[in-house]
Amino acid sequence: MSLLPIETQPPSDEVELVEIPGGGILSVPGLRGGATATGVQPAPRLDLAVITADQPRSCAGVFTKNEFPAAPVKLCKSVLKENGRAKSVVINSGNANALTGLTGDRDAQAMSAKLEQRLGGPALVLSTGVIGESLPIEKVLRGIELASESLSDSNEAVAQAIMTTDTVPKSFALEARCLGSSKETFVVGGVAKGSGMIHPNMATMLAVIATDLPIEQEALQGILSRSVQRSFNAISVDGDTSTNDTVLLLAGGMKNRATVLDDDPILERVEAAVRTVCRSLATQIVRDGEGSQRLMVVSVEGAKTEEEAQRVASAVACSNLVKTALAGGDANWGRILSAAGNAGVPLSADSVSLRIGGETIFADGTCVPADTEKLDEEFRSSSVRVTLSLGRGNRQAEMITSDLTKEYV
Amino acid sequence: MSLLPIETQPPSDEVELVEIPGGGILSVPGLRGGATATGVQPAPRLDLAVITADQPRSCAGVFTKNEFPAAPVKLCKSVLKENGRAKSVVINSGNANALTGLTGDRDAQAMSAKLEQRLGGPALVLSTGVIGESLPIEKVLRGIELASESLSDSNEAVAQAIMTTDTVPKSFALEARCLGSSKETFVVGGVAKGSGMIHPNMATMLAVIATDLPIEQEALQGILSRSVQRSFNAISVDGDTSTNDTVLLLAGGMKNRATVLDDDPILERVEAAVRTVCRSLATQIVRDGEGSQRLMVVSVEGAKTEEEAQRVASAVACSNLVKTALAGGDANWGRILSAAGNAGVPLSADSVSLRIGGETIFADGTCVPADTEKLDEEFRSSSVRVTLSLGRGNRQAEMITSDLTKEYV
Repeated sequence: MSLLPIETQPPSDEVELVEIPGGGILSVPGLRGGATATGVQPAPRLDLAVITADQPRSCAGVFTKNEFPAAPVKLCKSVLKENGRAKSVVINSGNANALTGLTGDRDAQAMSAKLEQRLGGPALVLSTGVIGESLPIEKVLRGIELASESLSDSNEAVAQAIMTTDTVPKSFALEARCLGSSKETFVVGGVAKGSGMIHPNMATMLAVIATDLPIEQEALQGILSRSVQRSFNAISVDGDTSTNDTVLLLAGGMKNRATVLDDDPILERVEAAVRTVCRSLATQIVRDGEGSQRLMVVSVEGAKTEEEAQRVASAVACSNLVKTALAGGDANWGRILSAAGNAGVPLSADSVSLRIGGETIFADGTCVPADTEKLDEEFRSSSVRVTLSLGRGNRQAEMITSDLTKEYV
Repeated sequence: MSLLPIETQPPSDEVELVEIPGGGILSVPGLRGGATATGVQPAPRLDLAVITADQPRSCAGVFTKNEFPAAPVKLCKSVLKENGRAKSVVINSGNANALTGLTGDRDAQAMSAKLEQRLGGPALVLSTGVIGESLPIEKVLRGIELASESLSDSNEAVAQAIMTTDTVPKSFALEARCLGSSKETFVVGGVAKGSGMIHPNMATMLAVIATDLPIEQEALQGILSRSVQRSFNAISVDGDTSTNDTVLLLAGGMKNRATVLDDDPILERVEAAVRTVCRSLATQIVRDGEGSQRLMVVSVEGAKTEEEAQRVASAVACSNLVKTALAGGDANWGRILSAAGNAGVPLSADSVSLRIGGETIFADGTCVPADTEKLDEEFRSSSVRVTLSLGRGNRQAEMITSDLTKEYV
């Protein structure tokens, strides 16, 4: 199965994006990683990974909006605010170190200190797993030592070690080849964990992404924030995040290359590459979970504002009735409109229209005679696009969701 | 199993509410009903019911907030606005007559006209079932004729005929005995359909409730609106409704009794009785669905506003992670707080506290040592109360939800 996102942005004529087969975060030059079994998850399962760069790199982060951010989230925010850079990252699974009070803060600090001592800092910490239980900190610190001693280029081990309810590891990397006069190439790779649509399940979503191109931190943050909005946030609902959700983006390491500054035209190409990696990882998360057989891209257009488009897309993507219809391969468009009518956005049946794949099925307030077999076939394909036009303006948004089958729960 | 709601309001010292075993909407004096199989649902399944009163009665209604209200919803609103009264109601299942354009409006009108001709008007129409397909109107009109010819007092047949994905019929009735000087008695009974928690499933919820006490329409509307808020809306999410959701309340028929006016102190007792019937029906809906084994009452207190309390309660009640923890009988309080932290309400871990049953499990920013076995036992009981104090004010709200088990979908 290709790990390319189901919907790649239209390829820019300024950059060619080529998937690196079997690639991941460690496909980025200058990065190495290690993984170990600490016993926090049942042995011999890998449950702790470290990723380290040869030198500190500029680093951007997007964090959970949950009112109870976990201790490692608070630590990462503070480190990035102070330094804007990171050299190493540790990710443990099985225990989220969330809602653990002052003990939790001390444990996250101890992990960072141990990692910095072994692999150099600034050192970031990510955690995922049970909420509300204190970390078995001795096991975790010993794990950081062990993982730091076994560095390699194995993307698989790192991706395995950060899994919780995931059934498959999630990695993706690509080489970006700039076209036109520059001919410069760079790599973007990433690793992620998470399963199913995030809402309303709210399993933790973590991702670490990197590129070897050195980029000034503020520009990097903009690229990451916009890319997350159009990838991980398209499988979630705005603000609907667990205590630990974190996405990091590291940049740097390329020899003899000046740092890319805010006004460099190459940034658009970098953003296309980062967004593509984020969308591949997000799509892998949606595919892993709920016994998912197929994906649905809910595209809403003709909205007055982007926020309004997102609300309607979310209402459709989160509807269990729509998701069970998708599982049954039954193009039940009535459920889609009913869900849309629930988004709290003023709509009129007379001006709304609905397409499934390329077929218009509802317009002018009523059902449009359509080829039912063709529709059902469309609905049974491995990914189906549903397009809802609201007839209120020209803003749009989209969400990616999966079907809901009996294997869920 | 008693059909009393899991949480009855504290019994007023002014009224005694006594469940009528096997009772329902037709336990109310002066009402009769009939049911038939039209063939819209696979024969011989009953799929159309009529309910009729000996005389027109004052009638209140609460309707879906969906942007695409079905044709019968529009018809009911218009009839009630014009008359404030109703004599008969027809409910068909299998086809919702929603998103059916002008044809749908004509079909709803035809149903109302046929019912009025057979059993007298004003005649109301409720529909539930597939969205977006035109009604097989000839079958439905013939069904109204047949059901009107077979009137009886059978609550069971009416409750059966309005089911769609429901696995059990839902009825409840009680006799209210006023205490103190008046000693007056009256009956409140109702029938409903719907299954599982309404969000995010959004299966249609219909209910028809009646009392034999004659009550002025405006006062009746107030009673119904407030009762729905504290019953059916406590199993849903504000505004999250299907195209057809409707609750009706009819009042009248008692011989030699003057109409109860707006300022009559008996209205408080009526409201306690109506609210109890609504809560029983709502609880039956939650229990029917998702393979539900047990219920959870999510109670939020210490909020700044009631709306804020509702948002937090909804976030917890709708969390699939919380619902699967409930199914597993695992008092995973971290998931409850994580869900609460997602409600978009500013919270601080230091001022929030959480009780499961009577046990405090989280306070002052960290876990409180508690009797784990006792907690798990509480969480495995047939209904568990979870109380979250936000430490922000003195407003409160509650939601009722069910566990999420493998039988769902």
